[in-house]
Amino acid sequence: MYTVFAGGVGASRFLQGLCQAVDPAAVTVISNTGDDVEMFGLHVSPDTDIVIYALAGAVNPDTGWGLRGDTFAVVDQLQKFGYERWFNLGDRDLAMAIHRTRQMREGRPMHEVVGGLAAAWGLTCKVLPMANETVRTMIAGPEGEIAFQEYMVRLRTEVDVRSIRFDGVEKAKPAPGVLEAIGGAEAVFIAPSNPFVSIGPILAVPGMREALANTRATRVAVSPIIAGQVVKGPAAKMMTSLGYEVSALGVARIYQGLVDLFVLDVEDRELAPAVEALGMRTLVTDTMMTSMERKRELAEDILNAIGTGR
Amino acid sequence: MYTVFAGGVGASRFLQGLCQAVDPAAVTVISNTGDDVEMFGLHVSPDTDIVIYALAGAVNPDTGWGLRGDTFAVVDQLQKFGYERWFNLGDRDLAMAIHRTRQMREGRPMHEVVGGLAAAWGLTCKVLPMANETVRTMIAGPEGEIAFQEYMVRLRTEVDVRSIRFDGVEKAKPAPGVLEAIGGAEAVFIAPSNPFVSIGPILAVPGMREALANTRATRVAVSPIIAGQVVKGPAAKMMTSLGYEVSALGVARIYQGLVDLFVLDVEDRELAPAVEALGMRTLVTDTMMTSMERKRELAEDILNAIGTGR
Repeated sequence: MYTVFAGGVGASRFLQGLCQAVDPAAVTVISNTGDDVEMFGLHVSPDTDIVIYALAGAVNPDTGWGLRGDTFAVVDQLQKFGYERWFNLGDRDLAMAIHRTRQMREGRPMHEVVGGLAAAWGLTCKVLPMANETVRTMIAGPEGEIAFQEYMVRLRTEVDVRSIRFDGVEKAKPAPGVLEAIGGAEAVFIAPSNPFVSIGPILAVPGMREALANTRATRVAVSPIIAGQVVKGPAAKMMTSLGYEVSALGVARIYQGLVDLFVLDVEDRELAPAVEALGMRTLVTDTMMTSMERKRELAEDILNAIGTGR
Repeated sequence: MYTVFAGGVGASRFLQGLCQAVDPAAVTVISNTGDDVEMFGLHVSPDTDIVIYALAGAVNPDTGWGLRGDTFAVVDQLQKFGYERWFNLGDRDLAMAIHRTRQMREGRPMHEVVGGLAAAWGLTCKVLPMANETVRTMIAGPEGEIAFQEYMVRLRTEVDVRSIRFDGVEKAKPAPGVLEAIGGAEAVFIAPSNPFVSIGPILAVPGMREALANTRATRVAVSPIIAGQVVKGPAAKMMTSLGYEVSALGVARIYQGLVDLFVLDVEDRELAPAVEALGMRTLVTDTMMTSMERKRELAEDILNAIGTGR
């Protein structure tokens, strides 16, 4: 059993490799739902859908999110009714949101809904939301607090992030199956996702850090920062504005005490001793995941490094 | 002020002509919502949308419903999640349903929602639902009772109709503005729509028949049956299975006591004396509405026939 704490694009690429390296049926994804958003009255789960689409081989390779070859007739038309066009949800992507919304309105718990969506896309791995309760990542900037998707999509991250809050998280519980997936795993991976807004909400769910502390699994984090730069998304910007060093070492400091093995890119090999000084083993390898082969090799490198446990 | 009891395709064609013949701002549409349906968790109002699309010049001319040039990416994709494909809602059509559903979930009354939709499409006439409450036209056939859209779209009317019931109508009230539109009109038109399932639900709303009885407006019905055949829809089939004569005279009998002027096609001129014997004046004219010009001329013919009132 392999369990993966997952955000969006980076996590989806890591998962593509892992599901090549091991039997996908042995993989459980714990998906960030803190950046879920209600758009046009529909419940949209960007991170979860990115993971599902990527593992189904259907993700748009140009963007890393959305569906390959999707069209945008509905969002175009919605402008007639005064909706802004900043959230560019494709037509086939929207079908997913329609189905999810309908099931949630009928009272089905989120973990059942997400499980059904993953199955509909033919996945054999298990995809779980971090929690069934509503948690919303809120970004506090100079003009006040905004929801994550507004920061990320509407304002294109052009806001100085002063603090991050996970609204509702104190009432959330790990979704059914999440604690078992952490406790029963051979390895728990923190995917190369944004530590603040992708992994942060998952770790903020009460009971999640304790589960990670108590598991006998080897706990592995893969740095989303390579040579001081982020592959995708606003992690580097956030690290700077929140006072962290923008480097794999900065990431390792955030996860200090939570992980046994920290994976850095070959470009960051000189940081390995400093990371090890934080009390983690390190693996230095190519983490760029530029092809499906490299994705699989990264997973294999890590599985080899795990060896017989922590 | 002109007020029109309206179903779907036939009514939309009649309204296109009327809105050419008079200032559309003087026209109020009272729209059948008995065939509204929840599809994919979205509130769809087929008759109302047909009227809005037709008056906006955007209706699909091949079908009489839906939007010209619409695509079907969302309903195609929804099959992945187990939905049947029988309700062929286009992508841009679906945007209307998404907006309507969202507004209704926020608690806005239907007449405000419909008014906003009509305005968004640039209409200057007023479009009102018959009632803000939920009314559902139920068709009883040999296998039991089904909702109207199932009968109409999924089963393509291939069911022997034994009776028709308007579920919830006893709790419905004419929507705000409806009674005023009937009471204050110069003429009230019953459009050439299905008397049972398009006009029937409107007339079944408590208070509607009384308003029609008490108005000083000239009350005009246009036959949807021409030469024993219906132009569009299942009206003829329903008349047969419910024991009515399939003719303009059969329609006139249904409206006996409710209308002052009955409009028949030239093909049915020999029925005029029998209709007049029911206590209505008649107008015999070309009612086929095969072009925008003929639509306008039909409205003008009727307005001329109304003269100085009932």
